[in-house]
Amino acid sequence: MTTRFNQPLGGNEMPRFAGHASMFRLPTQTNAEGLDIALVGVPLDIGTSNRAGSRFGPREIRCESVMVRPYCMYTQAAPFDSFQVADIGDVPLNTFNLLKSIDIIEGFFDDVLSHGAKTISMGGDHTVALPILRATAKKHGPVALIHVDAHSDTNDSMFGERITHGTIFRRAIEENLVQADKMFQIGLRTTGYSAEDFDWARNQGALVVPAEECWHKSLSPLMTEIRGVIGAETPVYLSFDIDGLDPSVAPGTGTPEPGGLSTIQGIEIIRGCWGLNMVGADLVEVSPPYDTTGNTSLLAANLMFEMLCSFPGCQRAR
Amino acid sequence: MTTRFNQPLGGNEMPRFAGHASMFRLPTQTNAEGLDIALVGVPLDIGTSNRAGSRFGPREIRCESVMVRPYCMYTQAAPFDSFQVADIGDVPLNTFNLLKSIDIIEGFFDDVLSHGAKTISMGGDHTVALPILRATAKKHGPVALIHVDAHSDTNDSMFGERITHGTIFRRAIEENLVQADKMFQIGLRTTGYSAEDFDWARNQGALVVPAEECWHKSLSPLMTEIRGVIGAETPVYLSFDIDGLDPSVAPGTGTPEPGGLSTIQGIEIIRGCWGLNMVGADLVEVSPPYDTTGNTSLLAANLMFEMLCSFPGCQRAR
Amino acid sequence: MTTRFNQPLGGNEMPRFAGHASMFRLPTQTNAEGLDIALVGVPLDIGTSNRAGSRFGPREIRCESVMVRPYCMYTQAAPFDSFQVADIGDVPLNTFNLLKSIDIIEGFFDDVLSHGAKTISMGGDHTVALPILRATAKKHGPVALIHVDAHSDTNDSMFGERITHGTIFRRAIEENLVQADKMFQIGLRTTGYSAEDFDWARNQGALVVPAEECWHKSLSPLMTEIRGVIGAETPVYLSFDIDGLDPSVAPGTGTPEPGGLSTIQGIEIIRGCWGLNMVGADLVEVSPPYDTTGNTSLLAANLMFEMLCSFPGCQRAR
Amino acid sequence: MTTRFNQPLGGNEMPRFAGHASMFRLPTQTNAEGLDIALVGVPLDIGTSNRAGSRFGPREIRCESVMVRPYCMYTQAAPFDSFQVADIGDVPLNTFNLLKSIDIIEGFFDDVLSHGAKTISMGGDHTVALPILRATAKKHGPVALIHVDAHSDTNDSMFGERITHGTIFRRAIEENLVQADKMFQIGLRTTGYSAEDFDWARNQGALVVPAEECWHKSLSPLMTEIRGVIGAETPVYLSFDIDGLDPSVAPGTGTPEPGGLSTIQGIEIIRGCWGLNMVGADLVEVSPPYDTTGNTSLLAANLMFEMLCSFPGCQRAR
Amino acid sequence: MTTRFNQPLGGNEMPRFAGHASMFRLPTQTNAEGLDIALVGVPLDIGTSNRAGSRFGPREIRCESVMVRPYCMYTQAAPFDSFQVADIGDVPLNTFNLLKSIDIIEGFFDDVLSHGAKTISMGGDHTVALPILRATAKKHGPVALIHVDAHSDTNDSMFGERITHGTIFRRAIEENLVQADKMFQIGLRTTGYSAEDFDWARNQGALVVPAEECWHKSLSPLMTEIRGVIGAETPVYLSFDIDGLDPSVAPGTGTPEPGGLSTIQGIEIIRGCWGLNMVGADLVEVSPPYDTTGNTSLLAANLMFEMLCSFPGCQRAR
Amino acid sequence: MTTRFNQPLGGNEMPRFAGHASMFRLPTQTNAEGLDIALVGVPLDIGTSNRAGSRFGPREIRCESVMVRPYCMYTQAAPFDSFQVADIGDVPLNTFNLLKSIDIIEGFFDDVLSHGAKTISMGGDHTVALPILRATAKKHGPVALIHVDAHSDTNDSMFGERITHGTIFRRAIEENLVQADKMFQIGLRTTGYSAEDFDWARNQGALVVPAEECWHKSLSPLMTEIRGVIGAETPVYLSFDIDGLDPSVAPGTGTPEPGGLSTIQGIEIIRGCWGLNMVGADLVEVSPPYDTTGNTSLLAANLMFEMLCSFPGCQRAR
Repeated sequence: MTTRFNQPLGGNEMPRFAGHASMFRLPTQTNAEGLDIALVGVPLDIGTSNRAGSRFGPREIRCESVMVRPYCMYTQAAPFDSFQVADIGDVPLNTFNLLKSIDIIEGFFDDVLSHGAKTISMGGDHTVALPILRATAKKHGPVALIHVDAHSDTNDSMFGERITHGTIFRRAIEENLVQADKMFQIGLRTTGYSAEDFDWARNQGALVVPAEECWHKSLSPLMTEIRGVIGAETPVYLSFDIDGLDPSVAPGTGTPEPGGLSTIQGIEIIRGCWGLNMVGADLVEVSPPYDTTGNTSLLAANLMFEMLCSFPGCQRAR
Repeated sequence: MTTRFNQPLGGNEMPRFAGHASMFRLPTQTNAEGLDIALVGVPLDIGTSNRAGSRFGPREIRCESVMVRPYCMYTQAAPFDSFQVADIGDVPLNTFNLLKSIDIIEGFFDDVLSHGAKTISMGGDHTVALPILRATAKKHGPVALIHVDAHSDTNDSMFGERITHGTIFRRAIEENLVQADKMFQIGLRTTGYSAEDFDWARNQGALVVPAEECWHKSLSPLMTEIRGVIGAETPVYLSFDIDGLDPSVAPGTGTPEPGGLSTIQGIEIIRGCWGLNMVGADLVEVSPPYDTTGNTSLLAANLMFEMLCSFPGCQRAR
Repeated sequence: MTTRFNQPLGGNEMPRFAGHASMFRLPTQTNAEGLDIALVGVPLDIGTSNRAGSRFGPREIRCESVMVRPYCMYTQAAPFDSFQVADIGDVPLNTFNLLKSIDIIEGFFDDVLSHGAKTISMGGDHTVALPILRATAKKHGPVALIHVDAHSDTNDSMFGERITHGTIFRRAIEENLVQADKMFQIGLRTTGYSAEDFDWARNQGALVVPAEECWHKSLSPLMTEIRGVIGAETPVYLSFDIDGLDPSVAPGTGTPEPGGLSTIQGIEIIRGCWGLNMVGADLVEVSPPYDTTGNTSLLAANLMFEMLCSFPGCQRAR
Repeated sequence: MTTRFNQPLGGNEMPRFAGHASMFRLPTQTNAEGLDIALVGVPLDIGTSNRAGSRFGPREIRCESVMVRPYCMYTQAAPFDSFQVADIGDVPLNTFNLLKSIDIIEGFFDDVLSHGAKTISMGGDHTVALPILRATAKKHGPVALIHVDAHSDTNDSMFGERITHGTIFRRAIEENLVQADKMFQIGLRTTGYSAEDFDWARNQGALVVPAEECWHKSLSPLMTEIRGVIGAETPVYLSFDIDGLDPSVAPGTGTPEPGGLSTIQGIEIIRGCWGLNMVGADLVEVSPPYDTTGNTSLLAANLMFEMLCSFPGCQRAR
Repeated sequence: MTTRFNQPLGGNEMPRFAGHASMFRLPTQTNAEGLDIALVGVPLDIGTSNRAGSRFGPREIRCESVMVRPYCMYTQAAPFDSFQVADIGDVPLNTFNLLKSIDIIEGFFDDVLSHGAKTISMGGDHTVALPILRATAKKHGPVALIHVDAHSDTNDSMFGERITHGTIFRRAIEENLVQADKMFQIGLRTTGYSAEDFDWARNQGALVVPAEECWHKSLSPLMTEIRGVIGAETPVYLSFDIDGLDPSVAPGTGTPEPGGLSTIQGIEIIRGCWGLNMVGADLVEVSPPYDTTGNTSLLAANLMFEMLCSFPGCQRAR
Repeated sequence: MTTRFNQPLGGNEMPRFAGHASMFRLPTQTNAEGLDIALVGVPLDIGTSNRAGSRFGPREIRCESVMVRPYCMYTQAAPFDSFQVADIGDVPLNTFNLLKSIDIIEGFFDDVLSHGAKTISMGGDHTVALPILRATAKKHGPVALIHVDAHSDTNDSMFGERITHGTIFRRAIEENLVQADKMFQIGLRTTGYSAEDFDWARNQGALVVPAEECWHKSLSPLMTEIRGVIGAETPVYLSFDIDGLDPSVAPGTGTPEPGGLSTIQGIEIIRGCWGLNMVGADLVEVSPPYDTTGNTSLLAANLMFEMLCSFPGCQRAR
């Protein structure tokens, strides 16, 4: 098949275990020029409060992404026939200084967005979503937010710091990066510092869907409902913390919490974004040192592929 | 918030990866004086028939328990506002002699119970439940038993020995430690020495709920039924073998059996104990050498937190 | 209990961690003489396109099979009271030459089948199913096929080679080893080289059941339907690629794909074969180097036991 | 080559990763009849004081022994042209009761020795050496002992028990199983309960060679000296605890101690036994759950091969 | 034995795998009051440039330290008969902000030193040595420095930051915390940003001993020489980066470099400090996520025990 | 520093854990045009007889090579100031067919050599050395060979195949690719199929240096001797099988053999090639699935850097 867009290196041209492990075996470039969608690594992990290691997330997700082929069999989605996509590498952040890195990341995304590209990012810890949202809101205005996570990430501070992987969505709302009444937090669970930890977001207008309300059922109906609330025009950002899923399906992460979503539910959420005006997405908190089989990275790569398939304009049957 | 009870060391006072990894980061003490509930480690693993290693269970469960915060978000349970709880350390058992250790454990629990405390214990292999039940029955009389497990543990003997991790509930019934007609075995499955292996317990009056009867559904209705049979007054003991859950959610155990309960079902069982007159509980058979990510220990810590939340008197919304 | 058939070495005669780890601790023999069912290892992994390692599958599956006891508790199946079964060891294949090994395997199975035995084989990668099917069709004629897998394995070629783990079922249909209108592919999913990858089999008459159509439900009704189509007389072969199951339950495999079947669904498929005229089965693609806990091999051993229980003539209650 | 003795299954007859993993791929038999040397597994690990897991030692050592070929290249030793050797399997011990197991082991070795065979055993923890020495001394009289270890194993008791993996050589001397003035303890090091821990053995006449006296040099001169003391007639037993070697070369063991012997020194000790009247040997304390690469088991298998090569009568050039 | 000092919990009072894993199983206290030597954890790892994870160093070193007994067998050192030692826990640092943590650490050590205690610290990454040296120099004046490492750690800056794990000893010299002419860097090796990377320290007066100059020999003569230069009065600080040792003996570290020192040489360096006026020491850069067997932490615990044995006043035979 | 040659991406421009993991973080190109030395991956592992997995060698060696900086501190070698070097990616081999892959590899190297570049290759299993030597001998004539290995790799055939990882150097001599009288095999050891296994090479004129002759000493004198025999003009190829080193320093390999060379000796061999007319080199048999810490790949990357430093023309002090 010929196409005008970048195509993944085929499995019959170079064995999957061989060759450069760029994201989805796509061509690489150093900025977002000419792209519809830029794949970006943000290997920051000094915003994390327990286990580190997500600094290696982008490298390992890319390594496992070599198994992902160009077509989604069930939805018949064909992202590489629909968009110009490339791997534009990692943000050259400062690993010793969290606040400087936040600024570097924001600047990097400003540049990507200035080329008219949308972004699908891979962390790194969840802190990286804040500067991405800052850049995104500058470009697109406050966004609707679909937030998959075990944690609310709306603490006011941690150890006195106002920017960490546990505070970013409070900052995002305070800074008007997110439309709080079009914010959906899915998968929150287990334990908190107080019984009211999830209420701050609720009080701003967000819908919190605890994991318990997801147990034993498909999330497709929930996504139908969410699409109804958001509508087709509002710019939407999907922030997907891999720890929203259960540790049995995503063991390689820094703050796992039992009782989470299944892989299937995670896919349903992403596929359920089709029809929304997606302007950006991230997949964060994969920590390879705790991913003893590589399968968390593999899952992350597949979820990022599903994200591509849900961006507006993707050829797709269902 | 001020409280008259022990509180876990906060995540903003000391990073979660730092400081003494006591259970739930609670204060420690060397006996049960003044406690409502004592958390006890019983690191015995010489009663096990296949993989060893649960001797390291208490240490690793404590290490992973540092992530557990004081409030259950869904049930709004607040155990540390409701009870005086502490980590009273491990039973100083004799690692070379199973029968002597059984006696040491019984004596240890006699002492704890003499202080009026209830116990939540962590194994060690399942053999430890027998001396705990001996002490518990001395204090509270024969107990109703909710037993989560892949195995019935009602063999008459193994290798000619009458006390092993596979024989304890036959002993418990024979010794009248347990009310067999208020005994519920949930999650039993796979293969047995004879097709009648589960029938001995049935013949004593126990209800056996094979894993197959749990597949594809919530266990909350089962728990409602069980609460109806037991009633609110009968003293109840919950013995939770982590291998009752599927190996995908609890890989780090000694005799894993495929096709088991989900984490969600495990939580439903424990939450479903609320309203019963819980007098003791254990979480056994976590084997850290086979828990390559630490997530089995993490799950065990969360399940023990849920146990705390289900003891009578816990402030809780649902 | 006395029986005229081979019995597994009992757990009270020799500890489970001790003694020769033959399959199910059964006696071994070097050919299939006198057997109803022969257990065979086929440790070939040079037909695989991504991660290798399934060459060690037979050894590790045997090692973990020591936990499997002789009776299935739920179905009350008693295979070792019903059949003469033995472990006949591994095919002495040529690890440097795929095509020569294919021939060696076919010859080995010709010999086994000539003794009137049926076979349950363990891989090795999925390529081994082709020579087994060649031998099986010679003996029994074209078979109905129940094929559990994440992948269709019906590529025409890979790297120009016509025999690899991704092409075998196209070859099997072309060679009339399989009745394509009685072929069922269950669990197919994720991504393909083209959106039509699964259509070749459909066009031959096969029923493709994508994983998505299996989500959130029991597969027992599907198996009822399949039994209806196949009928009781047609010889049936079950080819079970462990990657049909989700990576969370079977991490130790070479080309894992997220969103797959649960262990429970895998068991339902195999139990649902009871009543069919099973003439052979395989369990392939277990790759021990990626099975950090041994639990994938353990699952494989249990699934092979369920296969035994579903062969015609097995004493069984349901 | 034809020979009248058992030969290992060749690497060109069956791939090394395939076939039954008997020790050195030798034939198996169930007793010692007709053997010059019997290879025996003793999978006991309930005599251990820290990490368990050596119960899986025999199985894993056998699995890794498939790489060992029949000739030692440097010494030109040809044990399978010199002796009738077979793998006679594991002692069927009682895993719940240490003292009963000790008796079972002694009985097993009595039987082996009654056939005139010598033994090379694999543990299991070091406790197993005591019943082996009891049987050996009954047969051969008190033996000279070459004992490689990080620990003296001459405590009087542990937790009040007189038979554990840390007390056995005190028992062996007290019971006159060993000629204390021909006892050599090599590799002892690190820390003790008192500064005099190694002196009890010295006071009985043993020569203690601390690891420090082995640093930076070949142990061949030491072995020459030891051979001089023992002489050619005295029956000699070699007890080789893998933790005598440094944790970097033998990580998979239960009580590792830094600063130990190198693999090279370990080989020098065993090769240095050539010329002595070896009547038995063991290799103990390999704990597979801590042997993440399998290389400790592989080393153990090679050391056991070197033991074979050092038994009297082995054809050998140097 | 009775003593006036804290004693480790004995292995016969509580199994080594049980009980609170304080450092060396010593009593804990929350400040340094009454101590001769305080054991301190400094779980900072956000100063590291490649692999993270040393934040878990103190927890795992303590866990493995349970194997260390009170007496050094070779030197006959008896630190717990010589000093009052306790585990005073971890510095409550701010895991999101490197510079604030540096100040917190300095303040913590100011307090410890104000009680007249000396310190043996465990990292964390090497950055922690800077605030410790600041506090130490305030108390004792500029110190002689024995620095074991693969790296010089004398970069001027990294990513523009002047305080990271690669710049600390340049800062320490600039701030006159160290007497550069009594500074010894042992084990430096492999590759650098320029061929002159090690020359800055040399130009300040330090002696650099590359790993190559250590190959194939004992380091005891070097230590004799170093003791001669330093003399008996000068206060000395030993900073021991575990990556000074070879990755084969210390795999669990963040920036391993092949060709390093052996464990034996590491012990020789520490034992060679006996006779010096040691005022402080650290053991840094153990990263448990990369320490798959626990043996790096075990080695670290033993090296810290050797440090205790080399502090002035320790009873010791040689 | 400015240079006319490719430079590795600096550690202060992009964190080491970030960015594209090309070899040494060098620029990539798709052929050898303009290069003095081409770095090539050859991810073939179907020529291996025991553990597979070296197909992932090139990917993991590149990932770990990010730690290697541009200057060798001890020798002061500056390869990137001396040569134009780039990573030219992997050979697109056919993973299902060994003989076709051998031809593909030879063709690939023919092309590289036609550009006038020399090659440093990374395997893959040792089979890859044969087609590389074929291309090299076509270009440079028969080469002197320095061969580091545990095995002679001079079998006549394995399983009847004449090209496998165990036969290549017999083929290389037979095909006159190598000057047998200038062939040096270093590190050979343990066991063989016959006591004469190493004699075939000796009979062709090769010098075999068994590991035993390397124990306890520096190999620099050996290299001096070898340089004397080879002389300065003869083209030389270095084939370095990582299993020549001991499993303790290189655990991640397919056929490890105890008692091997140390890392230090490995470096001495490579540094000892300086002064020879090196025309090519390889580093083979790194198998990442067995390299649990990544340190075998890290070692391989450092050894390949040392190879670069030993090629003629490298600026270097000693």
